[in-house]
Amino acid sequence: MDPIGNFFVRREGLEPDLPPILTGSHLDSQPAGGRFDGASGVLAGLEALQAMDAIGIETRRAIEVVSWTNEEGSRFAPGVMGSAVFAGQSSLADVLPLKDPKGVVLEDALADVMSMMETVERRKIGFPVAAYLELHIEQGPILESSGATIGVVTGIQGTRWFEIEVTGAEAHAGTTPSRMRKDALKAAVSIIAAMEEKLADDADGLRFTVGRMSVEPNSPNTVPARVVFSVDLRHPDAARLKSASEAIQAVCRGFSGPCSISVRETVNMDPISFDAGLVDLLDKAAGVLALPSKRLISGAFHDAKSMHAVSPSAMVFIPCAGGVSHNPNESATAADIAAGTRVLALTLATLANLANDRFRE
Amino acid sequence: MDPIGNFFVRREGLEPDLPPILTGSHLDSQPAGGRFDGASGVLAGLEALQAMDAIGIETRRAIEVVSWTNEEGSRFAPGVMGSAVFAGQSSLADVLPLKDPKGVVLEDALADVMSMMETVERRKIGFPVAAYLELHIEQGPILESSGATIGVVTGIQGTRWFEIEVTGAEAHAGTTPSRMRKDALKAAVSIIAAMEEKLADDADGLRFTVGRMSVEPNSPNTVPARVVFSVDLRHPDAARLKSASEAIQAVCRGFSGPCSISVRETVNMDPISFDAGLVDLLDKAAGVLALPSKRLISGAFHDAKSMHAVSPSAMVFIPCAGGVSHNPNESATAADIAAGTRVLALTLATLANLANDRFRE
Repeated sequence: MDPIGNFFVRREGLEPDLPPILTGSHLDSQPAGGRFDGASGVLAGLEALQAMDAIGIETRRAIEVVSWTNEEGSRFAPGVMGSAVFAGQSSLADVLPLKDPKGVVLEDALADVMSMMETVERRKIGFPVAAYLELHIEQGPILESSGATIGVVTGIQGTRWFEIEVTGAEAHAGTTPSRMRKDALKAAVSIIAAMEEKLADDADGLRFTVGRMSVEPNSPNTVPARVVFSVDLRHPDAARLKSASEAIQAVCRGFSGPCSISVRETVNMDPISFDAGLVDLLDKAAGVLALPSKRLISGAFHDAKSMHAVSPSAMVFIPCAGGVSHNPNESATAADIAAGTRVLALTLATLANLANDRFRE
Repeated sequence: MDPIGNFFVRREGLEPDLPPILTGSHLDSQPAGGRFDGASGVLAGLEALQAMDAIGIETRRAIEVVSWTNEEGSRFAPGVMGSAVFAGQSSLADVLPLKDPKGVVLEDALADVMSMMETVERRKIGFPVAAYLELHIEQGPILESSGATIGVVTGIQGTRWFEIEVTGAEAHAGTTPSRMRKDALKAAVSIIAAMEEKLADDADGLRFTVGRMSVEPNSPNTVPARVVFSVDLRHPDAARLKSASEAIQAVCRGFSGPCSISVRETVNMDPISFDAGLVDLLDKAAGVLALPSKRLISGAFHDAKSMHAVSPSAMVFIPCAGGVSHNPNESATAADIAAGTRVLALTLATLANLANDRFRE
């Protein structure tokens, strides 16, 4: 275990000094999350190690399974914390003083957990990793609807968030003709309808979502004076994300009617592309095992996003029922988890035995 | 004062047994209301009586000024209470048990007020009224923008309220393609945009407002599963209001996309037309006094709505700055209040002296 609570299980290799192959995910969940988001990736890694032991495979490199601390950020924000600290994108000094909603400091909460695991060997933050693989439920409906069992994840799409504030003027619904109104909700509706028309284009792979909206004063007989809404925009290609973001701005300017408008960007994360060699290996493993597979882009973040910065990385997705996640109804079949685990195990063994690999050491 | 706390000031007529001419409004306000909504109508009535005294006019009928109890309904809901009880649309038994938000019972609150006015003569609820006139600020922008000082109010438009609930399904904004979404906010936006296109037509006099909207779960990266919004629809003509309400239902059915929808009507109040003879008299008074006047429909409710059921009734509007009301910035000029009061006084004197009127006795 390292000082941020990342927990590693190592299966030793024939050449212990070579950087290991790492796999895993996280065990934490959302407050009303399910049993598969995160946990299936950690358990798949352990299962792979057990299977190798069972059939007596020896590998050149060690293989390690990791359970990353606090991927969800439900108690201590932000999430993807353990892997970000491991990969140097965040530091212990940044995160240890963070508090949960009850005022508990992360450093104290971590010390409590670690005191229950005193016999576990301690390790420093970060070490060279030859390759990182993560199995995860898809958290979307694409595999289920396409009939594929294995999702070979080629990258994580970029995300930009905007907070758009439309300001009009309160007026009495019964006495004010529309031509004299500055109706912030009417303007927001025009803007969102125009954005839907321009941006919600599946063929292009763009994801456009207005998920949050607040209306003031929010009274049935008062023309709204202020509306604030969110835009979540995602695409695997940074240039497309940029042009879509520019379209957002243009629509806001063009459809605000008599209201004033402000657009504030709150998140801007570039898309990433996973290692092409690893993606090919995962494809091949699915083929060898005769499992129907499909390449796809991850719409959500994962610890693999942190690891991508310090190691060749890729992910395996498995279907989840109805694409539902972060919900007690989250579900994946035992057969699909087993199939994903077989792809993972085969790829881990292959990677750990590559005689002359091109991975960073 | 009557048992609901309506307060009357009577200027006796030459024939005290004839039903009086009644004028007035209310002295209560909204929690953050202004100084003109209500009070200007009561003070205008008193000013008219003083002016008649000052110049020694005698009238055949008595003229009474009334301050109606609880027009706004801010502390004890519903509003328009004193005049509704007076006119028999509500009863003491209905309203005396009502409680304010702190649990104080209306009957006790009324007893407290009345105990401070022990010398005031008590009167039973309701009596014949020959005619009712009410001066009020417009609470809208029409007079100010048209340059008219006097609004001759021909009626109160009808109102229908709908609560529309759109139900879709929660989904991850990053992982779910739009064709697989049941986005309740997207459907609500389509519906409101279509309603705006079909219904927000000033030429027709229809007032269409979406003033309230709530979104669930209201998170930037989650496709909304449920949106509830209000529709406030007003028009002076019941048939037009009916056709617009039918259009509301049709749009809801036609634009809900993959979501399900329910439409619940929460308010249905027919329009009323004030007494044509009184409206003519007010027009003539403005003409005699050389004041620019304009006929218009009241978009808001008033005590005159209650009185219309038991007496010929009409209203005089005066401009208010920017049409703003129910707000500390509410404002009307002394000159406009004086002009309205002159129209009111002249009409009251005319009505009280009509030798052979057609009013109910």
